[in-house]
Amino acid sequence: MASATENNDHLVRSDNPAHPANLIPSLCAKFWTLGWVTGTGGGCSIREDDLVYLAPSGVAKELMQPSDIYVLSLAAQAASLYRRRVYLRSPAAHKPSQCTPLFLAAFTRRGAGCCIHTHSHWAVLVTLLLEQQQQQHGGDRREFRINNIEQIKAFGRGAAKTGNLGYHDTLVIPVIENTAHEEDLTEFLEEAMDEYPDTYAVLVRRHGVYVWGDNVHKAKTQCESLDYLFQLAVEMKQLGLPWISEVEPTLPRRP
Amino acid sequence: MASATENNDHLVRSDNPAHPANLIPSLCAKFWTLGWVTGTGGGCSIREDDLVYLAPSGVAKELMQPSDIYVLSLAAQAASLYRRRVYLRSPAAHKPSQCTPLFLAAFTRRGAGCCIHTHSHWAVLVTLLLEQQQQQHGGDRREFRINNIEQIKAFGRGAAKTGNLGYHDTLVIPVIENTAHEEDLTEFLEEAMDEYPDTYAVLVRRHGVYVWGDNVHKAKTQCESLDYLFQLAVEMKQLGLPWISEVEPTLPRRP
Amino acid sequence: MASATENNDHLVRSDNPAHPANLIPSLCAKFWTLGWVTGTGGGCSIREDDLVYLAPSGVAKELMQPSDIYVLSLAAQAASLYRRRVYLRSPAAHKPSQCTPLFLAAFTRRGAGCCIHTHSHWAVLVTLLLEQQQQQHGGDRREFRINNIEQIKAFGRGAAKTGNLGYHDTLVIPVIENTAHEEDLTEFLEEAMDEYPDTYAVLVRRHGVYVWGDNVHKAKTQCESLDYLFQLAVEMKQLGLPWISEVEPTLPRRP
Amino acid sequence: MASATENNDHLVRSDNPAHPANLIPSLCAKFWTLGWVTGTGGGCSIREDDLVYLAPSGVAKELMQPSDIYVLSLAAQAASLYRRRVYLRSPAAHKPSQCTPLFLAAFTRRGAGCCIHTHSHWAVLVTLLLEQQQQQHGGDRREFRINNIEQIKAFGRGAAKTGNLGYHDTLVIPVIENTAHEEDLTEFLEEAMDEYPDTYAVLVRRHGVYVWGDNVHKAKTQCESLDYLFQLAVEMKQLGLPWISEVEPTLPRRP
Repeated sequence: MASATENNDHLVRSDNPAHPANLIPSLCAKFWTLGWVTGTGGGCSIREDDLVYLAPSGVAKELMQPSDIYVLSLAAQAASLYRRRVYLRSPAAHKPSQCTPLFLAAFTRRGAGCCIHTHSHWAVLVTLLLEQQQQQHGGDRREFRINNIEQIKAFGRGAAKTGNLGYHDTLVIPVIENTAHEEDLTEFLEEAMDEYPDTYAVLVRRHGVYVWGDNVHKAKTQCESLDYLFQLAVEMKQLGLPWISEVEPTLPRRP
Repeated sequence: MASATENNDHLVRSDNPAHPANLIPSLCAKFWTLGWVTGTGGGCSIREDDLVYLAPSGVAKELMQPSDIYVLSLAAQAASLYRRRVYLRSPAAHKPSQCTPLFLAAFTRRGAGCCIHTHSHWAVLVTLLLEQQQQQHGGDRREFRINNIEQIKAFGRGAAKTGNLGYHDTLVIPVIENTAHEEDLTEFLEEAMDEYPDTYAVLVRRHGVYVWGDNVHKAKTQCESLDYLFQLAVEMKQLGLPWISEVEPTLPRRP
Repeated sequence: MASATENNDHLVRSDNPAHPANLIPSLCAKFWTLGWVTGTGGGCSIREDDLVYLAPSGVAKELMQPSDIYVLSLAAQAASLYRRRVYLRSPAAHKPSQCTPLFLAAFTRRGAGCCIHTHSHWAVLVTLLLEQQQQQHGGDRREFRINNIEQIKAFGRGAAKTGNLGYHDTLVIPVIENTAHEEDLTEFLEEAMDEYPDTYAVLVRRHGVYVWGDNVHKAKTQCESLDYLFQLAVEMKQLGLPWISEVEPTLPRRP
Repeated sequence: MASATENNDHLVRSDNPAHPANLIPSLCAKFWTLGWVTGTGGGCSIREDDLVYLAPSGVAKELMQPSDIYVLSLAAQAASLYRRRVYLRSPAAHKPSQCTPLFLAAFTRRGAGCCIHTHSHWAVLVTLLLEQQQQQHGGDRREFRINNIEQIKAFGRGAAKTGNLGYHDTLVIPVIENTAHEEDLTEFLEEAMDEYPDTYAVLVRRHGVYVWGDNVHKAKTQCESLDYLFQLAVEMKQLGLPWISEVEPTLPRRP
């Protein structure tokens, strides 16, 4: 009991299903059924004010428990020499996830409240198709673009902007190349965040996607909508349908 | 408690799982697993006599609660100056759905008891394939047509008619163009309802589908059957199979 | 209570989850998740000795209750003038399913203990591909054939035979043309049963499949395995892989 | 009660959900939803020290109970004349699975703690595509190879090695030909294990895959990851994307 207190187990104990330590396992169980976190890949992190809640490395995401959750303090990290990560709670049996610095980038650079990382094969296929398109037609492999699909309206216009994208707007998701070690993605993710100040997601080639939002609801909505669009994009490619179209704004009525 | 009474919370409180305020959340949770209401898109509305029950805008459809439901009176609306919508109950935390006038069109123009709106990607792909077909072969992008599939028998012949379509009948679903703002779809939806008096559904290009029925059971059956046909139609296209066929009515028996 | 007795409600009341009146709803709920009984299509019937348990027409299959089940006596039917169906129990709110005579064919002609009817779109696509194949290459549209797939071993060799098919055996499923009215399929189904005395399934073009077995376990195993093979067959077609292959029985070992 | 003792029923009775006799049914139920053990195909076995827990032949995998589980002693088998399998517990109603010697190979040759066998149609399609590739282009049908996909990092480097594969490493899974009788696969599986000392999986042409790991967690993680890669590989083929690529290790930054 003493050690539990020392390890701040109270930070992950709550009867409230909306508490981050309960929410991360229930969200990850749901994501597992969607094929987003197959084989311990992917994950989800939530920030509440100063505290960041993180899933550990290498656990079956649909079986996770609140006791598996790491808790980290952003303020303590900011105050520390060399800005080392300060874990207020570490589950004994686990190692921190390699995704940790990537989740932190969304929290510190964008003020996000939640960040989701999926290995969805739709996301992977979209990055492969962009690669193929560049090789065959010289297109830009570093951006996924789609327009004139209703689901695009689920995305916010950007951090400093109000409201959501419109139906005719083009959703642009930057794509970064994968690295041998996941931590090494951090600088490229941050670079993409700087280059695309309005984006809420970054695709990682042959790997998956990082999606964030101001809170859990927005991150989840944007992640679901993006996966919907990635699936649609792959199916459109199979059917010879282009991702970008010029739809006439005012079509003639039926005569 | 007083405010709860004033806000008519009794309208959404019932132990009966078949009460609209309980049914909308349970149906939407089921629809979420089917990919119909991903990322807060789509929804479902039920009418019982004068009262219309509606899901709010922007909520995760699989997590909805009875307390999230709006209730609206059709008679009060009809009696009001300028026919403004009259909400008998509004959940404090939410905004009304942009789909509201589209659901109302099914209730007032067709006397429907339930209307379902999905963003099913099968529906979206069918509208894209019709667009492609028009560009390539000059076909009519404003109608989805399929015949000689057993599942067609799940559809009613039309509002003023008895019985269901037959196996050899052609199911025709009108397609309207999407608009930047969902409310602006209303007039086009109503126009399609007028032009196709027998239809129980309208496709919206690059967006999804609206399906209704005399009651919840019929709307759900028709919506499921339509999604089945949209999926089949996309797969048929991938395999080079035509949507319309001339099947001989009396094939010779095996010799 | 009197009317309940008169209507033989005791025939569908049991605490045993393996009782047919409980099993049909739980099986149908499972089949719904597999896309086999979408939009009230398809169904399942169980025979125990003389009694046949049947789902009604037009109900949402995943929501069915034991009280929805019809019970019919085969002996009473055989003894009746004109062999009219004799229902020992009829749920007040429903109509008998049009599939009834087709289920009965499996029970009376094959001594089956269970028959499952699905509208699986894999089954429908297989029948469409056979149609296409005949039109393009003159193949026989009246048989689905596949060999050299392990899952084939899930099928019995035939009613009068012991054991199951082997890996190298060719599974042959007859295909009958659909009719405008489901009851009218009966004579063609019976004809196919006569022509293919070893088959446990009959495909219905543009409609679905009927699968049966000596008991519920065998019918379910064969129906699942067949749907697996239909899905595989469609995907093989998409990838240019033939359904029938000549695999060398003894391949050379690795050197 | 006496017979229960004689049959060592205590070996499969535990309140601990992590006990192998409880874990095998819960894992198999999950695998059924993934399409891995359709129609009684496939299965799962767990070893704890000397004891091996096995599912029986021909049961519906999503309905299995702890009482259905066989228990076998490796030491007793090693000590027996002719090395016959020694069952400490046999469920009366069942027959041992034909997969038994294949599971045992993973336990005795690799010291695995868990082995999973799936009939996943993604696995089957991958073996068919390798066959097609050999026929069309003379490739080697005896190996599935894929590289530069993040999910590859879920696989261990090999039995005698520490750590996991890297992103740029090529995952190699040997493929053996199927045999008419599943037990006859054993020698070919063992041969492949000898030839590929680092592999944790063997594909069986037109049949499925065997995947193992040091413990249940690792076997499940590797099996899920492999199925993810098989699905991706099939979809890549449909889109004309190669399984092996030369990704530049250091791509130029955005200018």
